[in-house]
Amino acid sequence: MAQNVLLTGAFGRVGTAIIDHLADKPDYNFTYLNRSDRDQYETFVADVSDREAIQPAFEDQDAVIHLAGYPETDGTWEEILKNNIIGMYNTLEAAKEAEVEKFIFGSTNHVVGMYEVENAPDIYYPDFDLMIDHTVPNRPDTYYGTSKAFGEDLGRYYLENYEFPTQFYALRIASVRHEEYDHPYGDAEHGVDRGDWERGSDEYETMVARMKSMWQSRRDLTHQMECCLTDDEVDFDVFYGVSDNDRRWFDIEHAREVIGYEPQDNGEEWDAPPE
Amino acid sequence: MAQNVLLTGAFGRVGTAIIDHLADKPDYNFTYLNRSDRDQYETFVADVSDREAIQPAFEDQDAVIHLAGYPETDGTWEEILKNNIIGMYNTLEAAKEAEVEKFIFGSTNHVVGMYEVENAPDIYYPDFDLMIDHTVPNRPDTYYGTSKAFGEDLGRYYLENYEFPTQFYALRIASVRHEEYDHPYGDAEHGVDRGDWERGSDEYETMVARMKSMWQSRRDLTHQMECCLTDDEVDFDVFYGVSDNDRRWFDIEHAREVIGYEPQDNGEEWDAPPE
Repeated sequence: MAQNVLLTGAFGRVGTAIIDHLADKPDYNFTYLNRSDRDQYETFVADVSDREAIQPAFEDQDAVIHLAGYPETDGTWEEILKNNIIGMYNTLEAAKEAEVEKFIFGSTNHVVGMYEVENAPDIYYPDFDLMIDHTVPNRPDTYYGTSKAFGEDLGRYYLENYEFPTQFYALRIASVRHEEYDHPYGDAEHGVDRGDWERGSDEYETMVARMKSMWQSRRDLTHQMECCLTDDEVDFDVFYGVSDNDRRWFDIEHAREVIGYEPQDNGEEWDAPPE
Repeated sequence: MAQNVLLTGAFGRVGTAIIDHLADKPDYNFTYLNRSDRDQYETFVADVSDREAIQPAFEDQDAVIHLAGYPETDGTWEEILKNNIIGMYNTLEAAKEAEVEKFIFGSTNHVVGMYEVENAPDIYYPDFDLMIDHTVPNRPDTYYGTSKAFGEDLGRYYLENYEFPTQFYALRIASVRHEEYDHPYGDAEHGVDRGDWERGSDEYETMVARMKSMWQSRRDLTHQMECCLTDDEVDFDVFYGVSDNDRRWFDIEHAREVIGYEPQDNGEEWDAPPE
């Protein structure tokens, strides 16, 4: 029987990767929750900052993939508080009330972002000797990263103290790109194809090197989501979401061992779009 | 020259211990910030959930000891959100704006409370083999504990990303008692002397055993605060606040090594008050 899966923040970069790769599979029956609708999709329109509004979307779901929230590192405290902190509480409460078993949380590398900041740009290049795993202390680089650390802790609190959810996965997703800029090309938001940086400039080369180290292709992301959707062993765990990049400094061995994550892509294949 | 120290939540259990033991020393010039005043003390009356109201109290301070917030594990989400999450943001912002160098945060054992919950009551008795240090993953047991984990992360974010504060200490304080119930007696709030449990009952014995393992005497707490106030090495660190209890499962070696914490008391001396 198909698994009922609620996708919050369905139409962002990560949500659309899941839709693109999984929506047609008979294994899953998706509900899309989003603040605004899209013509082509039936959408449960609601904001995760509104606890009552979102509750009905959780009924009869087997799993929730929680991606809704302010999605970028430039979020102000007010934006982060409302969408990511209160939004996480509301989403967990709704899942608990509706007795949803599985909760997959779209966390971020920015929970541990200072390890990057203090080592950039050297960390983006081959042979830099650092591997960050799920046991390192949190070192958030932004309100955004701090709010996702909070979300992981709150999820663990719910997991260990309430009947539902019964499984909680924190995926610290690094750099997933929009469909049109995915492999083998770059990313609109980071400025590569908006001309923010001159091709060949130092900043441009650094940006490309960063992407090669932090990229998670849309198919690897989706595969990792499926690993979580089909797993029945984990109670609480934290995994990094990156492809098997030569230059990665995020551990994927833990995800490989625990949920069978086997990424197919490598950031060395990634490149910025042509001029 | 005396150090100017702002004490938020000055009149709670921890704040009054500091006042009792340190207010008369010439080394410190305290300002008491509290939601309500006390006849005997000059008080800056303000609520940490009100950012503008608290700001003036931070001017010209060398250090802030941040204790204000909802203080118990029974806090509802709304209480914790307002007082502990928003309150922490406001306090850090105020410290940053006023260029306060040192930030000592009253965190809690409940950040890692599930290690206790899953091992109680055996964990309260001698020879139970567990030692929780500052490197274990967070496992909060309540909204309260989750909010303090957030406060630690937010403090680290400020420390590593802004000019001020320049030092941040998270003290995971376990069980500090009111003056009248301190060594060698028990604690009103936990019911020992309110007759919640019959003396000699299993629950009563468990409560006493718990206190023997988790107690931090008021003088050890105050000494630990002074270790932080006088330290000039730490940038960010996490320490447990317990006395040198035979039954403790919280590490104090890290605090001993880094800030010279040398507790004088031992929970074996602690006992519940007589009937």
